[in-house]
Amino acid sequence: MTSFPFDGIALGCDYNPEQWPRSVWPEDIALMQEAGVGFVTLGVFSWALLEPEPGRFDFGWFDEILGLLHEGGIAVDMATATAAPPPWLTAAHPEMLTVDEFGHTLWPGSRQSWCPSSPVFREHALRLVAEMARRYGEHPAVRLWHVSNELGCHNGRCWCDVSAAAFRAWLADRYGDVEKLNDTWGTAFWSQHYASFDEVLPPRITPAVPNPTHQLDFARFCSDELLDYHRAERDVLRDICPSVPVTTNFIISSHQSEQDYFSWAPDMDVIAQDHYLDHRLPHVHAEQAFTDDLTRGVAGGAPWLLMESATSAVNWQPVNIAKRPGELLLDSLRHVARGADAVAFFQWRASRAGGEKFHSALVPHAGRDSMKFREVVELGAALTAIGEVAGSHVVADVALLWDWNAWWACDLGSHPSAEVRYVDAVHRWHKAVTDAGATADVVSPSADLSGYKVVVVPTLYLVDDTLAPALAEVVARGGHVLVTYFSGIVDTCDHIRLGGYPGAFRELLGVRSEEFAPLAPGATVTLDDGGTADLWTELLTTAGAEVVASYTDGPLPGTPAVTRNGTAWYIATRLDEAATAALAERVLDEAGVTRTGSDGVEVVRRGKYVFVLNRSSTEAVVPVTGTELISGTAVAGSVSVAAGCAAVIRAAVIQEGT
Amino acid sequence: MTSFPFDGIALGCDYNPEQWPRSVWPEDIALMQEAGVGFVTLGVFSWALLEPEPGRFDFGWFDEILGLLHEGGIAVDMATATAAPPPWLTAAHPEMLTVDEFGHTLWPGSRQSWCPSSPVFREHALRLVAEMARRYGEHPAVRLWHVSNELGCHNGRCWCDVSAAAFRAWLADRYGDVEKLNDTWGTAFWSQHYASFDEVLPPRITPAVPNPTHQLDFARFCSDELLDYHRAERDVLRDICPSVPVTTNFIISSHQSEQDYFSWAPDMDVIAQDHYLDHRLPHVHAEQAFTDDLTRGVAGGAPWLLMESATSAVNWQPVNIAKRPGELLLDSLRHVARGADAVAFFQWRASRAGGEKFHSALVPHAGRDSMKFREVVELGAALTAIGEVAGSHVVADVALLWDWNAWWACDLGSHPSAEVRYVDAVHRWHKAVTDAGATADVVSPSADLSGYKVVVVPTLYLVDDTLAPALAEVVARGGHVLVTYFSGIVDTCDHIRLGGYPGAFRELLGVRSEEFAPLAPGATVTLDDGGTADLWTELLTTAGAEVVASYTDGPLPGTPAVTRNGTAWYIATRLDEAATAALAERVLDEAGVTRTGSDGVEVVRRGKYVFVLNRSSTEAVVPVTGTELISGTAVAGSVSVAAGCAAVIRAAVIQEGT
Amino acid sequence: MTSFPFDGIALGCDYNPEQWPRSVWPEDIALMQEAGVGFVTLGVFSWALLEPEPGRFDFGWFDEILGLLHEGGIAVDMATATAAPPPWLTAAHPEMLTVDEFGHTLWPGSRQSWCPSSPVFREHALRLVAEMARRYGEHPAVRLWHVSNELGCHNGRCWCDVSAAAFRAWLADRYGDVEKLNDTWGTAFWSQHYASFDEVLPPRITPAVPNPTHQLDFARFCSDELLDYHRAERDVLRDICPSVPVTTNFIISSHQSEQDYFSWAPDMDVIAQDHYLDHRLPHVHAEQAFTDDLTRGVAGGAPWLLMESATSAVNWQPVNIAKRPGELLLDSLRHVARGADAVAFFQWRASRAGGEKFHSALVPHAGRDSMKFREVVELGAALTAIGEVAGSHVVADVALLWDWNAWWACDLGSHPSAEVRYVDAVHRWHKAVTDAGATADVVSPSADLSGYKVVVVPTLYLVDDTLAPALAEVVARGGHVLVTYFSGIVDTCDHIRLGGYPGAFRELLGVRSEEFAPLAPGATVTLDDGGTADLWTELLTTAGAEVVASYTDGPLPGTPAVTRNGTAWYIATRLDEAATAALAERVLDEAGVTRTGSDGVEVVRRGKYVFVLNRSSTEAVVPVTGTELISGTAVAGSVSVAAGCAAVIRAAVIQEGT
Repeated sequence: MTSFPFDGIALGCDYNPEQWPRSVWPEDIALMQEAGVGFVTLGVFSWALLEPEPGRFDFGWFDEILGLLHEGGIAVDMATATAAPPPWLTAAHPEMLTVDEFGHTLWPGSRQSWCPSSPVFREHALRLVAEMARRYGEHPAVRLWHVSNELGCHNGRCWCDVSAAAFRAWLADRYGDVEKLNDTWGTAFWSQHYASFDEVLPPRITPAVPNPTHQLDFARFCSDELLDYHRAERDVLRDICPSVPVTTNFIISSHQSEQDYFSWAPDMDVIAQDHYLDHRLPHVHAEQAFTDDLTRGVAGGAPWLLMESATSAVNWQPVNIAKRPGELLLDSLRHVARGADAVAFFQWRASRAGGEKFHSALVPHAGRDSMKFREVVELGAALTAIGEVAGSHVVADVALLWDWNAWWACDLGSHPSAEVRYVDAVHRWHKAVTDAGATADVVSPSADLSGYKVVVVPTLYLVDDTLAPALAEVVARGGHVLVTYFSGIVDTCDHIRLGGYPGAFRELLGVRSEEFAPLAPGATVTLDDGGTADLWTELLTTAGAEVVASYTDGPLPGTPAVTRNGTAWYIATRLDEAATAALAERVLDEAGVTRTGSDGVEVVRRGKYVFVLNRSSTEAVVPVTGTELISGTAVAGSVSVAAGCAAVIRAAVIQEGT
Repeated sequence: MTSFPFDGIALGCDYNPEQWPRSVWPEDIALMQEAGVGFVTLGVFSWALLEPEPGRFDFGWFDEILGLLHEGGIAVDMATATAAPPPWLTAAHPEMLTVDEFGHTLWPGSRQSWCPSSPVFREHALRLVAEMARRYGEHPAVRLWHVSNELGCHNGRCWCDVSAAAFRAWLADRYGDVEKLNDTWGTAFWSQHYASFDEVLPPRITPAVPNPTHQLDFARFCSDELLDYHRAERDVLRDICPSVPVTTNFIISSHQSEQDYFSWAPDMDVIAQDHYLDHRLPHVHAEQAFTDDLTRGVAGGAPWLLMESATSAVNWQPVNIAKRPGELLLDSLRHVARGADAVAFFQWRASRAGGEKFHSALVPHAGRDSMKFREVVELGAALTAIGEVAGSHVVADVALLWDWNAWWACDLGSHPSAEVRYVDAVHRWHKAVTDAGATADVVSPSADLSGYKVVVVPTLYLVDDTLAPALAEVVARGGHVLVTYFSGIVDTCDHIRLGGYPGAFRELLGVRSEEFAPLAPGATVTLDDGGTADLWTELLTTAGAEVVASYTDGPLPGTPAVTRNGTAWYIATRLDEAATAALAERVLDEAGVTRTGSDGVEVVRRGKYVFVLNRSSTEAVVPVTGTELISGTAVAGSVSVAAGCAAVIRAAVIQEGT
Repeated sequence: MTSFPFDGIALGCDYNPEQWPRSVWPEDIALMQEAGVGFVTLGVFSWALLEPEPGRFDFGWFDEILGLLHEGGIAVDMATATAAPPPWLTAAHPEMLTVDEFGHTLWPGSRQSWCPSSPVFREHALRLVAEMARRYGEHPAVRLWHVSNELGCHNGRCWCDVSAAAFRAWLADRYGDVEKLNDTWGTAFWSQHYASFDEVLPPRITPAVPNPTHQLDFARFCSDELLDYHRAERDVLRDICPSVPVTTNFIISSHQSEQDYFSWAPDMDVIAQDHYLDHRLPHVHAEQAFTDDLTRGVAGGAPWLLMESATSAVNWQPVNIAKRPGELLLDSLRHVARGADAVAFFQWRASRAGGEKFHSALVPHAGRDSMKFREVVELGAALTAIGEVAGSHVVADVALLWDWNAWWACDLGSHPSAEVRYVDAVHRWHKAVTDAGATADVVSPSADLSGYKVVVVPTLYLVDDTLAPALAEVVARGGHVLVTYFSGIVDTCDHIRLGGYPGAFRELLGVRSEEFAPLAPGATVTLDDGGTADLWTELLTTAGAEVVASYTDGPLPGTPAVTRNGTAWYIATRLDEAATAALAERVLDEAGVTRTGSDGVEVVRRGKYVFVLNRSSTEAVVPVTGTELISGTAVAGSVSVAAGCAAVIRAAVIQEGT
């Protein structure tokens, strides 16, 4: 990757000046300066105005606003403007529209109305990209190229005939021989044997349950297809203006599964990520911490760029909860604490019209005279004050494994329990580790695990053959490994690892399971250590492991629920939250992980900087000596952080585990 | 409007003799006479039998039944018979079928299988209308033309290509210049700028959220398109037989939003309305009272015609609750009390076969020897007894504002809370006013408000620029205005009124809101007056108003929840039912509205007639002097009405507010 | 029917050797021998491998495995291999794919991707059948032909244009004259009159509610169409190898309604049935008992073949509950007790790949060294031990009436209450009778009822004119008849039986109901005998009957809820479970039915064999003298059966009712 495109810890935002009369623009620049906005993303949805008819470009208004920004000292993350094609293009080429698995065409009238495999879309989009690159590649305000926008948001998968042909080509490339595909997909089952690649379709709706490896490969194809599209834009940009770095904004999220960002990351000059609090989840801020930790994992530990977030409520959840006073600062610093070197928002000024007019912004409908804008100014000042944090790396003793392929495979149908959801399992264990006062890197199963004291493997249903040896090495050097139910079940073809579950980890864990016995919704079981659990049990026997806890009731009384094989732990059920927390603390303590913080008080270290984020309702006192950067005051021995507030301390001496 | 087509307070019904052998017809006439049926609606679904093949008409059987009715002294509301096209027409012209937003064709086999914009349907339908008009326009039994039936029930919106072309023509007519459309729809957002009207589509399913003004204009188009169809039939009828008045039966209802009946009403010679109790709602009879009051509002205060209702259960709700003994009379008199000058039912005789065979009727499956038919006879006698009420006007001190445009806009997606539903808010406040013992006219925001002591404005999200001045006039003359949350937010283009919420009413109410803070489903907040509330809070500050109640908890403790600016009240949350009731009573009392009645005992005045409807389980005593019309007995000082019973008193002296 | 194709009480399974390398096959045979597998079903999903391209057949591998099986002494139920067409066929002929009522094509990629009316599918399938018959018809291992597989599972109904034409032909054949169709469907309603059969469509989605008789006839057509397909395959087989019996495996189930198996049964040489426990239901084992009793009814009382079941969990329910230790034996013996002469499973070896890899099997993923395989071996031994039971007939004093036509009609829309579900009503009364210690034959309304002491008629909405006289005969000879609410309402055209409900049974029961008064979801009513009820009440008066219990509250206080007209009982509501049980016991006792067993302890007699199945948690003692066959021990006076265990006793003396 190249060096980070913006200075210090930058405040940024999407800026859509075309939604406002020109008379508003100078006020925009002045308020941006007041707020300390360091950069804006420009042009994301400007195609229809930049190219009002095929091949005729109107850059005048764009030149003007770019000039105003540059004069105002505001850098630009320049979008290629291809995210949403103009109506003239979709009207002329309805064959570029996406089609869902039912065969419904998804019509224009919103955004991203294009099939990722469409050649006609690509032709028009790349022509625009080239125009943009030629005109703005050398502009001094432009510090970063922003390919399309949230690639795959709303058009991540398409089942149209164009996509079908592209899928067949991808399969032919992957397998070479159709018999290899037949073996991998297990087409001997249900008379699905393909005589030729030409017979394969995308997994559209079927009378009975579909072939899971077919579905899994389609998921892989869809991720690859959009990455290929990214590369096409990137190549045009590099060709014309090689000096400006290129990225696209990821949407690493619990409600967006369609891109394998580990496979995308190497193509990015900097990792950019959009994050919105999801109030449909039970633990909103825990999810943010998780996603930040995963984004850092995708970035290979390097600082990353928060490209979009919200100053308060969004508009796309059933009920859009506003941030309470102070939360904007706290949530923004959480991103920084966990590796972001810029904090940006959608969008500068709340829209008057259109589908996102109720999305919060830096300047709300109420205008400059508002609590929200005053909080934005306060945030800008805080980010400036902690600018020296930029470039530092987060310190973590724990690795938690995450894999998009495993997500895709785990959440397919026809499994023992549809209540087993990959994200739920991962969130639960990440929260337990975080609440216990440790920091976790969320990394790929293929990551280097040598630096971690604890490796957590929640419900990693699909694994290749390399992970078990890697975990064995962790155990061999005294590290702890914690594996939970429904892990290691299949290989990368979604073929069962035979001989007993959890196939890949049986030896590592010293256990063997003959059969799964998932629990009915709402049913719970009791453990002999007093805890309870739900969702899952299995007919487990030990083969070397020690039993830590067993069931006293349920379908399998007396059967082990938690085991350990030295430092290799197996959790064969979904423990309740208290039992999960207790077990997390036990393992962290045994592994020698110093724990600081608690549920409600996050303490995270980036290099010599200690972030204290106090979401709780009481004052938090954390031992540290140095200088608190936001207030500029000295800290001797410990820092007191009021409820709802945050501190960032340049530590004089780093104590182990602080 | 012309004078009312039927005499006294008429009892009527849909009559479908084609469903029965001719041998049944004489018994039908005899039983109608026994029940006091004054008119029947004939021919609604007779097209396939009247025109068994294209252009060949078979009127013989129709002549015969019309003759029998006329001989029996029963007037006829003559349907044009176009509601449901015959199979030969849809089979020959599948392009006339409606298509939903997913692209699914809706096939024949039920009713209303026609696209409102279909030229081929219109051609065939108008030919039949002309035939009907020529043959029956002079028939002495025919007192009213009944265009089609429940226009828009099941085919109110169509997304087919024919509709798309009609929508484009409507837009071109509305906007003239496509740039005006672009401004109004805010197409600068998400690259939606249209280069030409030719590029516009109906709002079919899209990958992401659609443009809300696009959706709103489509709703307007669909309402206009069916009204245009009504006019086409009406013009044929007027042309051929100008002396017979023309109407169509509205379906003003909480589950049917697609027609803006305020815009339809001027085209009607008399307002006709269908009403069925909806047991999916929490307050069944309150909804009836509301809809009656709104129907009267649509009729501009004039008497209206209840064209359809049910003697007991319907067949289209998940569970179809039967009326208990006595409820038929009580519910029928509720319609009359609130302005109906006729009470009609679907249908005369319960069907043996077909999709509505379990819908109740005047003659049930059990036949004449049944409690139901005896109740019908009793009802007929009661309506005859109160015939002199016809033509009188309901007396109301309260106006409650209602607007179909506001409904369409309020319930669009991507709003702060999907839990905010327009109808829910309106029902809640109408019920509070009614239970408090007042009568409300439900009228358009453009109605003359000069006669009302109180004007209630529940969640009127969309308003034009004329309402705030009109409400200011109400306040200026000492009237009370009560506005609830999420009102006055946007103009008629669905553009935010900037500078703080509620944009249109900020000055009137003396408040300013910076941000909405809707509550999670199930969450409640407490007010410092002891009440509770849910659904909604906002970051409200007063600017002249006085605080009536504030939150003690929730996201915004200490923030005002209820304010008053003199007699302009703002309710910034959804109060619980008791708090809503208490506030309604307080405002009514301060406004000098005399309150008579309660939840369970409705007292409504039409001119000099006082209706007392006792739904409660105890006797009700209401002060009035005069003559009870059903029993023909004198009332001196007060009337006692037994539980479950009703009284209609011609008052000797009208006391203020009785 | 011909004699039973397998010996004793055979253990069988589906065997899909193509899913495994040939090296596994010899181990398969050896383990089958160890388990006592008597027969396997072969070739169900082998089409794509048997005919890898059009007209080219590859039987070599099939010959080989057939040889191995035969050498191993294992008989074969030979599938015709046509259940799932190969991709080359669907790719060449997409017009053979099924289409749902919305117009969505259901694409290949699972199984059963063929329209039942497709001529092109039939042509290819019958060619394969002929090849199979010629090649394997004389093979000594082949004891039974297995047509297709689970006909109608996933493709039971199709709305495509090919199906539409077939439906029209079926209607023309059924009605002859289109006016007869018009009368039957009641097309006078809603202008649905057809001028010609050519205008009729399948009941695709419509704007409003569809015509119920149209829906009902389509259901009949769909059942007939697949039966016709069965006959086509059967005729090819009989033609080529007349000596081998032919069947297809039924799926008599509460979640599969589309085949009227009473009409299919006469075409089968032996009745074969698939059964899986459905853990979505409240009473899993009661459903099994019911389905077994119904399968026996379909078989006319003769022994039947359990063609598929699961050794433990399936994979297609939301949560797939595993069998606890011992349940495999108990559930298998329940099938035998209720008439099965073979117990077979899907499948031999759990798949490694594909959509059913988490379905349990005889050999689990864990392999031979597993509790599951040991239980299979134990089961095989038990079935061998009780082999002499084969051919005996179940003894039952009670008949419970069941009808697929009534199911289709009862569960149509636009009914008084969508909460009334036919299967629910039937299950409730079957369970009450069974828990009370009686055995019921579940038979068609046209069955001979002369041998039964009690006939139960739960919610038989649709009945022809012959049933009431047949029930009157039962009553005349002193038998008891118990009819529940919403029975006898319509004739076979779905036309209301006029004059009062329950039309068909008014005279029999001595009651008359004027109106239905279903209860809101969750509402209950109290009876004057202390019981409660929900779902349904009606305005019932007696006309000869005696009132057994009346309502004390609800919409109709004082109205009869339960009546008896001599021995003809009418239950006009849904009694709670305790009240249902008490009434069942009362009627059984009055009818002189000896009751043995209870909820949890089933005692069922087949000829001289007494099955005791103890699902309870305590020991059960049942009076009987003879020999327990599994253990080979003598039983004198009574048998004690431990909790979770079973016994099968050859009784020395059959006591009345044991």
